[in-house]
Amino acid sequence: MKKINVAILGCTGLVGREFVRLLDGHPWFAIACLTASARSAGRRFAETDPPGPDGTGVAGRLVVRETNAAAVVASGARVVFSALPAAAAGPLEAELREAGLRVFSNAGAHRMDADVPLLVPEANGEHLELARRQLRRHPGFIVTNPNCVVSGLALALKPLMGLAPRAVAVTTFQAVSGGGRRGVAAWDILGNVVPFIAGEEEKVGRETRKILGAVSAAGVRPDAMEVYPSCARVAVRDGHLQSVGVEFARPVDGDAAAAALAGFLAEPQRLRLPTAPSRPIVVRPEPDRPQPRLDLRAGAAIQAGRGRPGEADRHGRAAGMAVSVGRLRPQGKRLDFFLLVHNTVRGAAGGSVLNAELAARKGLIPGVPRG
Amino acid sequence: MKKINVAILGCTGLVGREFVRLLDGHPWFAIACLTASARSAGRRFAETDPPGPDGTGVAGRLVVRETNAAAVVASGARVVFSALPAAAAGPLEAELREAGLRVFSNAGAHRMDADVPLLVPEANGEHLELARRQLRRHPGFIVTNPNCVVSGLALALKPLMGLAPRAVAVTTFQAVSGGGRRGVAAWDILGNVVPFIAGEEEKVGRETRKILGAVSAAGVRPDAMEVYPSCARVAVRDGHLQSVGVEFARPVDGDAAAAALAGFLAEPQRLRLPTAPSRPIVVRPEPDRPQPRLDLRAGAAIQAGRGRPGEADRHGRAAGMAVSVGRLRPQGKRLDFFLLVHNTVRGAAGGSVLNAELAARKGLIPGVPRG
Amino acid sequence: MKKINVAILGCTGLVGREFVRLLDGHPWFAIACLTASARSAGRRFAETDPPGPDGTGVAGRLVVRETNAAAVVASGARVVFSALPAAAAGPLEAELREAGLRVFSNAGAHRMDADVPLLVPEANGEHLELARRQLRRHPGFIVTNPNCVVSGLALALKPLMGLAPRAVAVTTFQAVSGGGRRGVAAWDILGNVVPFIAGEEEKVGRETRKILGAVSAAGVRPDAMEVYPSCARVAVRDGHLQSVGVEFARPVDGDAAAAALAGFLAEPQRLRLPTAPSRPIVVRPEPDRPQPRLDLRAGAAIQAGRGRPGEADRHGRAAGMAVSVGRLRPQGKRLDFFLLVHNTVRGAAGGSVLNAELAARKGLIPGVPRG
Amino acid sequence: MKKINVAILGCTGLVGREFVRLLDGHPWFAIACLTASARSAGRRFAETDPPGPDGTGVAGRLVVRETNAAAVVASGARVVFSALPAAAAGPLEAELREAGLRVFSNAGAHRMDADVPLLVPEANGEHLELARRQLRRHPGFIVTNPNCVVSGLALALKPLMGLAPRAVAVTTFQAVSGGGRRGVAAWDILGNVVPFIAGEEEKVGRETRKILGAVSAAGVRPDAMEVYPSCARVAVRDGHLQSVGVEFARPVDGDAAAAALAGFLAEPQRLRLPTAPSRPIVVRPEPDRPQPRLDLRAGAAIQAGRGRPGEADRHGRAAGMAVSVGRLRPQGKRLDFFLLVHNTVRGAAGGSVLNAELAARKGLIPGVPRG
Repeated sequence: MKKINVAILGCTGLVGREFVRLLDGHPWFAIACLTASARSAGRRFAETDPPGPDGTGVAGRLVVRETNAAAVVASGARVVFSALPAAAAGPLEAELREAGLRVFSNAGAHRMDADVPLLVPEANGEHLELARRQLRRHPGFIVTNPNCVVSGLALALKPLMGLAPRAVAVTTFQAVSGGGRRGVAAWDILGNVVPFIAGEEEKVGRETRKILGAVSAAGVRPDAMEVYPSCARVAVRDGHLQSVGVEFARPVDGDAAAAALAGFLAEPQRLRLPTAPSRPIVVRPEPDRPQPRLDLRAGAAIQAGRGRPGEADRHGRAAGMAVSVGRLRPQGKRLDFFLLVHNTVRGAAGGSVLNAELAARKGLIPGVPRG
Repeated sequence: MKKINVAILGCTGLVGREFVRLLDGHPWFAIACLTASARSAGRRFAETDPPGPDGTGVAGRLVVRETNAAAVVASGARVVFSALPAAAAGPLEAELREAGLRVFSNAGAHRMDADVPLLVPEANGEHLELARRQLRRHPGFIVTNPNCVVSGLALALKPLMGLAPRAVAVTTFQAVSGGGRRGVAAWDILGNVVPFIAGEEEKVGRETRKILGAVSAAGVRPDAMEVYPSCARVAVRDGHLQSVGVEFARPVDGDAAAAALAGFLAEPQRLRLPTAPSRPIVVRPEPDRPQPRLDLRAGAAIQAGRGRPGEADRHGRAAGMAVSVGRLRPQGKRLDFFLLVHNTVRGAAGGSVLNAELAARKGLIPGVPRG
Repeated sequence: MKKINVAILGCTGLVGREFVRLLDGHPWFAIACLTASARSAGRRFAETDPPGPDGTGVAGRLVVRETNAAAVVASGARVVFSALPAAAAGPLEAELREAGLRVFSNAGAHRMDADVPLLVPEANGEHLELARRQLRRHPGFIVTNPNCVVSGLALALKPLMGLAPRAVAVTTFQAVSGGGRRGVAAWDILGNVVPFIAGEEEKVGRETRKILGAVSAAGVRPDAMEVYPSCARVAVRDGHLQSVGVEFARPVDGDAAAAALAGFLAEPQRLRLPTAPSRPIVVRPEPDRPQPRLDLRAGAAIQAGRGRPGEADRHGRAAGMAVSVGRLRPQGKRLDFFLLVHNTVRGAAGGSVLNAELAARKGLIPGVPRG
Repeated sequence: MKKINVAILGCTGLVGREFVRLLDGHPWFAIACLTASARSAGRRFAETDPPGPDGTGVAGRLVVRETNAAAVVASGARVVFSALPAAAAGPLEAELREAGLRVFSNAGAHRMDADVPLLVPEANGEHLELARRQLRRHPGFIVTNPNCVVSGLALALKPLMGLAPRAVAVTTFQAVSGGGRRGVAAWDILGNVVPFIAGEEEKVGRETRKILGAVSAAGVRPDAMEVYPSCARVAVRDGHLQSVGVEFARPVDGDAAAAALAGFLAEPQRLRLPTAPSRPIVVRPEPDRPQPRLDLRAGAAIQAGRGRPGEADRHGRAAGMAVSVGRLRPQGKRLDFFLLVHNTVRGAAGGSVLNAELAARKGLIPGVPRG
């Protein structure tokens, strides 16, 4: 199988660099094009500022182009991964779709479009149907992944949907990388907590309901669950911890809930997608987990096949792709737990790459054999 | 009026030092006795390790005694403030009560005793009735203040009780000072969040219900409210931030709730107690408050009489005694908000001092004129 | 005595806010004009973003003007304090000098001008002679204070000049506030040290030598001392710690050096300037001091007259104006020690205010009686 | 070749865990015995508290023994790695030497013994001669590695010895892991710098001089270099940054010094020892390196053979074994630079493992073929 050429838009930001890391050496995709703002354009990726600790792969030698549709099309890329800011992403991603490209975007611009899937492969893989619908009207399509908080939350809620949740409250402890490389000033966050992130709580509500909703003729009928988000920034570099409380229609059995979470497997696992963790949800038995420092890289790759399920395989492609859950506390009709998601991996670049892998295996990217 | 001699037990810890700061120069009380473990005994307070940045007051010259009942009694103290660990506090506080002393304790040992008030003066001042009952059976009494989280939570819930809350969920962002000076290792918390504090969640539930309960013949009949606590430690030095979600029987009017919180006044304010903040609850209008760094010292002293209500009076006795509330978000029958409490001031030493001031003004400490 | 109207340029930044704090209620000066960029212009100072925890003084009600010479002149200000960025400060400060104003600037633009004093009042008060020279050629003058590191370093070196230092090496642990409110990204500094601050080391060398130099016909003949600076940023909010090693021509007597530092008094102390600390250098006897957290606010005001010399008077005008020195370690011809300077107080706004006070008492600002 | 059984003393601390990580799967050594205090004894290593993120190797299933000589001898171990506290290490290591074991110790107890090598393989491999001398008087021997600061400093000074350094001043920014898992309280270090580490500066002076000294009949004749250490703790988890200033007899050529550092290779590289980095010193060309966050894991393994020299091979055995140097600034006879050493890898466990590898290849551990 010949690898499929891909482009990464916005390659120099924190999410863009995660895209490069995950796609440099990917078994199906080959990086053909890297774009960024005019400031970085013209330099080799390895020379863009700030250089990461690594960056010695093939991608390091690619010359970064200024972001625009013509450069992407000219590169021969057939798939696009977008780490652009929302304002720039809106028109450009639509333009690339018209040019026949398959766009997998971490940007917020098109997430709530009626015919754009907001995809977490283990939670709502069937929403890819919307991408097929786009292909009837456009030569290409756009598939989005949700906000970093929702990436973890919707995944953890999925196995609990059978227990009929009626409401979910989530308080977040969000890492500074979620605000981008220069988005959070040290002066504001050192030794502090800031209980506000602009626009975040609105996204948590509407995106969670769309992901857990059902595909309908008109798009997606969102789930009726009430969502009560309270988002705060903490002095952590990577990893969004979440305190989640779910209310059900009936009293909840804690053991059953734990088993449903720990045993959860979905299409990405069955299809052995390259970036899929062997277990998407790791249930920690310790009294004080998950923690950003210890659980950030959860997610052993199926291919690697070593380590206990849920143990971090620090070398593997899927490190950071599993969500860690702990401290399950049932109390009547309510279940409280803590959850950790790697915000720039599962919550951004890794989520988008997994979306592309699922789409490819389902026949939406010509050149990859169906799973 | 002659000042009343008091003792401070466990004076060298973080809470003990706050007691010293608040009582050194207090208008009604004079420090007659400071105790600590054998390691510090025999040295002047100003020489105990670690010296604070200040410590130049009268208390600095006092020689620290080893903690035991005889030393306290011999000092002539009639009132005791206890910052002892719970295990040591249990028997010693009972012994001091038998010796006729009025004990105001931050320790957890006696908080749930049927005849011991668990007191937040603005929330349940009427529970001091239990202290009167103790005096029928003992020559002295014990009055406790709650856990640091509950000190802020119960205070903020009090003005909302008229709206019939049925359940409260609270996720905490707790400062390292809550674990004591050496209780939290830098290795564990730097750049991290630890979603567990031993024993904390149990205290939050039972203490909140006791404070908001009603005095009965048998002691206190706890409030029926469900409490769902999720406690986490963050890399902040002082100040417990809390994400609070309250569920009511009926849809909640956000403006009415905000007005109830901001306008709340109680006995300590009417009695103009020396350590009472002019407003016990400060409602912040900004989109991103309260924050530990900015709002830790909320609480303008009545005596000072300057500053806008709720503005920090950094020089005043009541700095750190007000709870700051912000980001009020009503949604149906639910009200979410963030809350900040200074954990070693309102949540520990300051709460205990205010308890003593209220008890004194209510005639429970001979020598202070009734309010 | 009628107060002298002053303007503060760049009032909304971290240094600008320190100027407001120090000048709001100053015994000689009255704030008549606050300026900032167009973004903040037109709003009351108390409403500028971000609001500090305080800001309730008279200055809070002043409407902020956009920075330009006309606005300053129109305000009636006769003295200007400048917290502008260097690029903007260069031409504007010169323009204000031509308009007859006395400019006290924290900006770097004019520090090395031959006829502009680079002033640390305790170290080189005699350099004010240069301001007199400016008055012969201009209707006003510019007086600058040095870089934040040099503000502390030059002050601590002054009492050692009699021991004939030949070289000084300094390694800094600089706080994030030194980079301005948004100058240091949390992503870069959390759990990290960055051993580089653009342009800083060059300033440390040339400014230290100018301050310790002698006024000559041509300006200042810099001291011949070699300076070896190594500047690093650490995850501290305020306070630049410095590891200093001084090499002398002869073996150094540690006790004599300590006595010279601790006993150092200069013109600001003799003149009892309002913002002068009673002791400009506090020598800490403890084995582990100074520390940013404990010693940031060193500097008891002469006026307050309370506290032991060197103890922090947290309420006083001079808090943060003393430099703390500790761990004096003589070894042969070398003396090593640690030093702490509050970078936005003594190292910026406070230094500039003290410069103005000294200039005023020396007859350079009409309206203030000579000392 | 059959693997040689080894024991790890003090396996549950931060350094002990690094020993386990490096020796679990080592090509020459097999872990036969893990010891710790009575608190952990009897549990499998994977169950000791706190569990690391990994710990799934063979060592995880070993049962931890209480530390004593009999347990080690009974295990059949022939080589011992010691991460004990100095007080316990002194007598026990001597006892194990008498039992015929080869002891490689990170403890400070025997470092200054006349016949014990204080070894940094790239700097003073020839000091292993002292181990041969020990074997004439004892059935076994003790080899030590230096203090974590010295491990990096002595290595970086070695290639400069040809330029005749006369004095070195070093100011450290030391990570909290250097104090052990609970050695540094969060309360003390959050947002702070503590300019003191008990006993550290004495070690830096005497150990650096011993390593750079020459073996003589009586032991080691220390180098005559003056050492001026100033040690401080910062809020970093791992990695000791150092600001180093070296004074030479003659003016120093910066390019020659950089080339000497970057090109430095020694016996561990020539012998291709398993834990040796391909380049022991990585010279960073960027203006702001090294940084703890970016350069902690420097050191590409020779075996891996990939990556550019000096790039971190995050998967390799030698990650953390190279010292990173940057910001070389020659000025007259002086050379200033910053240096980073991974304090628990090159500065502790990794240094000790490399010592054992060198000793083995030089015929001091029977069973490993000579290099």
